[in-house]
Amino acid sequence: MLKSRLLAAASALTLCALAFAHDNTKPDDAIEYRQGLMTVIGWNFGPLGAMVKGKHPFDAADFAKHSGRIANLSDQLLEGFTKGSDKGKTEAKSEIWANWDDFQSKAKDLDTQAKLLAEVAKANDEARDKEQFKKVAEACKACHDKYKKD
Amino acid sequence: MLKSRLLAAASALTLCALAFAHDNTKPDDAIEYRQGLMTVIGWNFGPLGAMVKGKHPFDAADFAKHSGRIANLSDQLLEGFTKGSDKGKTEAKSEIWANWDDFQSKAKDLDTQAKLLAEVAKANDEARDKEQFKKVAEACKACHDKYKKD
Repeated sequence: MLKSRLLAAASALTLCALAFAHDNTKPDDAIEYRQGLMTVIGWNFGPLGAMVKGKHPFDAADFAKHSGRIANLSDQLLEGFTKGSDKGKTEAKSEIWANWDDFQSKAKDLDTQAKLLAEVAKANDEARDKEQFKKVAEACKACHDKYKKD
Repeated sequence: MLKSRLLAAASALTLCALAFAHDNTKPDDAIEYRQGLMTVIGWNFGPLGAMVKGKHPFDAADFAKHSGRIANLSDQLLEGFTKGSDKGKTEAKSEIWANWDDFQSKAKDLDTQAKLLAEVAKANDEARDKEQFKKVAEACKACHDKYKKD
């Protein structure tokens, strides 16, 4: 009895923490957050793209550094898409919230591919790096094509 | 002779990678990047502050999560303060570039304190977490007081 009450209390605290992080947020703050996140991801994506396209010499350490940073951020994206944050200065389509499961699945795919890239990038294998980079880029594009305004 | 030429070539590539990441960037992009970074850090700092001030129940796992995220970002800040990026929509004072060594030292102190917080937060010791959080907050403030416009 006590144990179940303790479990219930612990569970309530966890829910509370989740609620704090997500649902008490003002829409504008969520929008600013997810745009900031995209900017930081983009900043680190740029040098990877330049190396993959041969616009910049391949540098394994640099490739690993930027890949690692993206992998540390890609699991934070969903948090920024709080309910009600389809209104405001945003390029996010309202279809996101109408198709939440699909959107969530696409966001998780990006995270999976980004974390794989960070792992692959540790091995200093240029061909595999480039191959996995393309999967990350495809995951970005799959979501942007469907859920981002032009 | 060959070895020294190889070393020189490798060194040139490294310099090139650094140059790519930092100095070829348009000032507006650097400003957007560092502001995005601050927003993402702030997003994760908020729940920590709420827990430290008792506005929200302490949750060790949540504390560790947000601390870890900040520690993964705090070493990226300096990159956003490229030369010439004192002009534009920015709250950064030009004193940053006039006192670069001091600014760099303060930014590195934030990174040191943030990485310590992420380490401390793994141990699930609320008192130590709160103590180290204050050091991170002080490191933020030391830089903002001197180098951020009101």
